[in-house]
Amino acid sequence: MKSRIKKIYENLCEEVDGILIMNSTKPHVDMTFFYVTGLIHGEFEGSGVLLYPDGEAEILTSALEEESALKSGMPVTAIRKREEREEWLKDKLKGMDKLGINSTELTYSAYKKIGENTDAEIIDVSDEIIEARNIKDDEEISRLRDACRIASDVAEEMPDIIKPGMREYEVAAEISYRMKKLGATGDSFEIIASSGPNTAEPHFTTSERKVSEGDFVLLDFGALYKRYCSDITRTFVVGEPSEKQKKIYGTVLEAQKAALETIAPGVKGEEAHNAAAEVIDSTEFEGKFTHGLGHSIGLSVHDGSGLSPSVDIELEPGMVFTVEPGIYIPGYGGVRIEDDIVVTEDGYELLTDASKEELRIIK
Amino acid sequence: MKSRIKKIYENLCEEVDGILIMNSTKPHVDMTFFYVTGLIHGEFEGSGVLLYPDGEAEILTSALEEESALKSGMPVTAIRKREEREEWLKDKLKGMDKLGINSTELTYSAYKKIGENTDAEIIDVSDEIIEARNIKDDEEISRLRDACRIASDVAEEMPDIIKPGMREYEVAAEISYRMKKLGATGDSFEIIASSGPNTAEPHFTTSERKVSEGDFVLLDFGALYKRYCSDITRTFVVGEPSEKQKKIYGTVLEAQKAALETIAPGVKGEEAHNAAAEVIDSTEFEGKFTHGLGHSIGLSVHDGSGLSPSVDIELEPGMVFTVEPGIYIPGYGGVRIEDDIVVTEDGYELLTDASKEELRIIK
Repeated sequence: MKSRIKKIYENLCEEVDGILIMNSTKPHVDMTFFYVTGLIHGEFEGSGVLLYPDGEAEILTSALEEESALKSGMPVTAIRKREEREEWLKDKLKGMDKLGINSTELTYSAYKKIGENTDAEIIDVSDEIIEARNIKDDEEISRLRDACRIASDVAEEMPDIIKPGMREYEVAAEISYRMKKLGATGDSFEIIASSGPNTAEPHFTTSERKVSEGDFVLLDFGALYKRYCSDITRTFVVGEPSEKQKKIYGTVLEAQKAALETIAPGVKGEEAHNAAAEVIDSTEFEGKFTHGLGHSIGLSVHDGSGLSPSVDIELEPGMVFTVEPGIYIPGYGGVRIEDDIVVTEDGYELLTDASKEELRIIK
Repeated sequence: MKSRIKKIYENLCEEVDGILIMNSTKPHVDMTFFYVTGLIHGEFEGSGVLLYPDGEAEILTSALEEESALKSGMPVTAIRKREEREEWLKDKLKGMDKLGINSTELTYSAYKKIGENTDAEIIDVSDEIIEARNIKDDEEISRLRDACRIASDVAEEMPDIIKPGMREYEVAAEISYRMKKLGATGDSFEIIASSGPNTAEPHFTTSERKVSEGDFVLLDFGALYKRYCSDITRTFVVGEPSEKQKKIYGTVLEAQKAALETIAPGVKGEEAHNAAAEVIDSTEFEGKFTHGLGHSIGLSVHDGSGLSPSVDIELEPGMVFTVEPGIYIPGYGGVRIEDDIVVTEDGYELLTDASKEELRIIK
């Protein structure tokens, strides 16, 4: 993954002699470890990787994960005792004047440990790391495409799998199972399978509620595939939809299309958000789109950037985002439609392709 | 969760005016947030909770998760813009002389942000937090018991579900699905479903390999239930076991029993490890038990402590550990048997109860 390491170094405003990525105990593992090593399998708690300006790197890990680490093709130091970690730090950081670290994914405790073992000035290079990670390379897009295909295939079949009377958590179990049977290693986040009034809470997960006649059923989930995250939402209705349900769904769909039409290099992320918000705010559902349009995805499901008024970014080819407008009416229900896209030279490519043109009916 | 907050304060050697737990973007969320709030649902990225010496607390979160946060019964400040987070910090930390933080689960970036918004001296209270979290209270043990029951029930049925020819990742999909159908919200870590020579790698996850006649099949997994993690391992054999397979299995089982017999308040964690290691090292499998005997479980699957020569702890009632000796023969295969226990006043209670006395056969 030399090209990724070089990309990080190219972004630096200030030269450093090395960049040290250090993982702590889960969940506090720096996803950048997997970005620079490309490793698919393994936990790598307490492991580290030291990146050099020429694109070379070396890994520190426990003896238990030596075999897995070697698959990176990088030199590996495998330790059996905790003390050996400090020896490795002392040895490798010796003589460095400036050392880069990733403050947004490094624990304060690990930061202190690094400081105790080096005289180098410590420089925060987290902005440069996220800048590199925001532009996905071909291998990353390939993994994301697979993660998106798995999620899309499952979204496509769900209206036929769900039956009235199923409980929300049983629907989530079906989604997760079907993704794993297609090769996902896990869910990219806790699945949202909400129904009826629960669909009005954008971050609802699941409950014991039974899917019932007249409900909206909102499914928001993603596959984890070779460590990359997809993220899709489809909303269905149980039985024939009411006029109001059709109107809400149609408005969200129109808002998503308006947002997608803006996506191209050079466009501000905020513009895509505003395009969707304007569609919704021009209807009786004004003010009911209560979150940002989307977030970047990659090794994390919130991968460092977003399409919203609070994030100042200009789109570039290789950036990957969710596009997910919604309308939420407390006590009644909500609709969200979410797809994943990669920005291309002349627009965008849709990575998720489950059908959405019609409000699909659960029978 | 006043009692938990008070427990943390009772552990302090140095008085502080408040303890601030701050979450960053996933996966960098401090599990202590859920320990002190008791909240079951929600992501709470970028959220925080400020703990006071009298056991009171207040939450900062985004408007999107206000409803979820209110279920804690604590006062909640819901923000819509990032700037409001800093205003909240400034306002709440004003006048404090000493502020506690949890260095092992706080990012360095969040640490800096706290420092910019307070004049208080910042004190690392991570040891005191982990000391409190290590002794589970009744509510925690109840959740762990349920998480363990779900994992046990699935472990019990798996030898009848697995058929020769199934791929390892399909076995993992079955495990995850069955746990979710029993109410788990997820896997507590990436499932290990290894077969044949793959069972010799303790941290293997899954591959496309087909389960075949003569294989050991090792399943290591856990249920996430109301945020608490269980962790069980059972090893099976496909078809009639060889003498060598029976001997390996019997040795691991004997080692686990020897370790369990030592578990009681006042015992050193290392002693339990050594009891298992001595059984294994007195056989032809000397040196093939290559990891620690166990780790504490709770809100994290590696919850801060362990039963091994490298961790200096004395067992106390309420501590919850895995007990998981194994024998690994590179190129041939491995066996691990893992159960979860809670230390009681006069010994321990087994939380996982899937059968293990005989090496079970997959047909």
